Amino acid sequence: MSTIEVIGLKDLPIIKVGDNLSELICAAAEKQDVPIQSGDIIVVTHVIVSRAEGNIIDLEKIVPSEFAKNIARQYEKDPALIEVVLRESKSVKRMAHGILITETRHGFVCANSGVDKSNVEGERVVAPLPVNPDASAQRIREEIRKRTGKDVAVIISDTHGRPLRMGEINIAVGVAGIKPLRDRRGEKDLFGYVLRIKNTAVADELASAAELVIGQANEGIPVAIIRGYKYLKAENATARDLIRPEEQDLFL
Amino acid sequence: MSTIEVIGLKDLPIIKVGDNLSELICAAAEKQDVPIQSGDIIVVTHVIVSRAEGNIIDLEKIVPSEFAKNIARQYEKDPALIEVVLRESKSVKRMAHGILITETRHGFVCANSGVDKSNVEGERVVAPLPVNPDASAQRIREEIRKRTGKDVAVIISDTHGRPLRMGEINIAVGVAGIKPLRDRRGEKDLFGYVLRIKNTAVADELASAAELVIGQANEGIPVAIIRGYKYLKAENATARDLIRPEEQDLFL
Repeated sequence: MSTIEVIGLKDLPIIKVGDNLSELICAAAEKQDVPIQSGDIIVVTHVIVSRAEGNIIDLEKIVPSEFAKNIARQYEKDPALIEVVLRESKSVKRMAHGILITETRHGFVCANSGVDKSNVEGERVVAPLPVNPDASAQRIREEIRKRTGKDVAVIISDTHGRPLRMGEINIAVGVAGIKPLRDRRGEKDLFGYVLRIKNTAVADELASAAELVIGQANEGIPVAIIRGYKYLKAENATARDLIRPEEQDLFL
Repeated sequence: MSTIEVIGLKDLPIIKVGDNLSELICAAAEKQDVPIQSGDIIVVTHVIVSRAEGNIIDLEKIVPSEFAKNIARQYEKDPALIEVVLRESKSVKRMAHGILITETRHGFVCANSGVDKSNVEGERVVAPLPVNPDASAQRIREEIRKRTGKDVAVIISDTHGRPLRMGEINIAVGVAGIKPLRDRRGEKDLFGYVLRIKNTAVADELASAAELVIGQANEGIPVAIIRGYKYLKAENATARDLIRPEEQDLFL
């Protein structure tokens, strides 16, 4: 198989608190005539997962600390938003040029702890990352299996900026059913030479591939199905494997 | 259009110095019954571009400097390889844990100046990045247009590790015919809110999507066609736009 399809799900309604995401994903795939198959990888943007789980925060109800107010003043940001960003973080990694890069409680290093403003109803409501994105992915996976009998992989994605490169790409913050890294060290290439350094972050590449359909639609497509990619199956997989430990990071 | 296809070209021969890549790509696409169409994005791994252009280096002929020998001794690497890596770089950004991260003459910050050992014939032959990857992409694009009449985009890809995240992903080192960044700042989302920070590195995401078919085949698939993605066309595009300027980088 050398062709992969990346299918954007167009027929999802706007996700509300308490919605059953798996049910809506299965129905949308049916309606679009691409019913879920075993081996599909379902990529879901984190905002709709947080929203379905009720993990959204009304900024009106947040009382910002003095520290949050200080930062907000310097950075010309909403103090309540900064307060949420700080609450979601376990450390601040960089603060400069109006950008606040934190380490989230999960260990992801990203701008604003991954707290997302766009595409949540109500101007002052934000969606942080899911509390346990791997568990969220696993729940979606199990619910899809229950409904359809199909064994799929699930990736929960987020949009991250990065050092060294301009522009954001989508990466995986939660995984279920799929090994997020494909370790090819020890495999041989076409000429019989051992591949030395290849350990591919396939879950991130799949999240980026999904963004190509998700990103074209002004948030109207929050889910993509990737079909035809032979991923390495894994139970108890975790997207934490994609986080570079600080002691192995030459740039932190 | 909410479905994108990523098609690996299976029928390419092993690329030799002097080969006409465009001709081989068009022929392989025909043979595989997916003839090139206008709007296709052709993703080509940098090693075969360098090889076709004769831009390969025989390590037997390299006389390493004392500095290269020093590093090679510490890092347990081939002194001739280190010499080539240094020659391809304009500065060293990090040296630790046996990893040498340099800024290439083009400005890419990556391990070993992007010099690639795998999949080049002869154990002591390496392929650096193309001298001007944008120009290489443009040549392939023009030659495809001449042969088929079709207007395509071309991306030359490389495998890069990155700060903060484990595992490598594919990114774009050369582009032709496509805007590498999709600036969505100012666009409105589904609820009418302005998207604040989105400036998506689509060329990197396309390179990563292509790697999903390229990486599965132990280097036997060095080219992918991405079909169905509505990219923003651009003449005189450059992958240098994807390099974060040092003064804007909080991690360099």
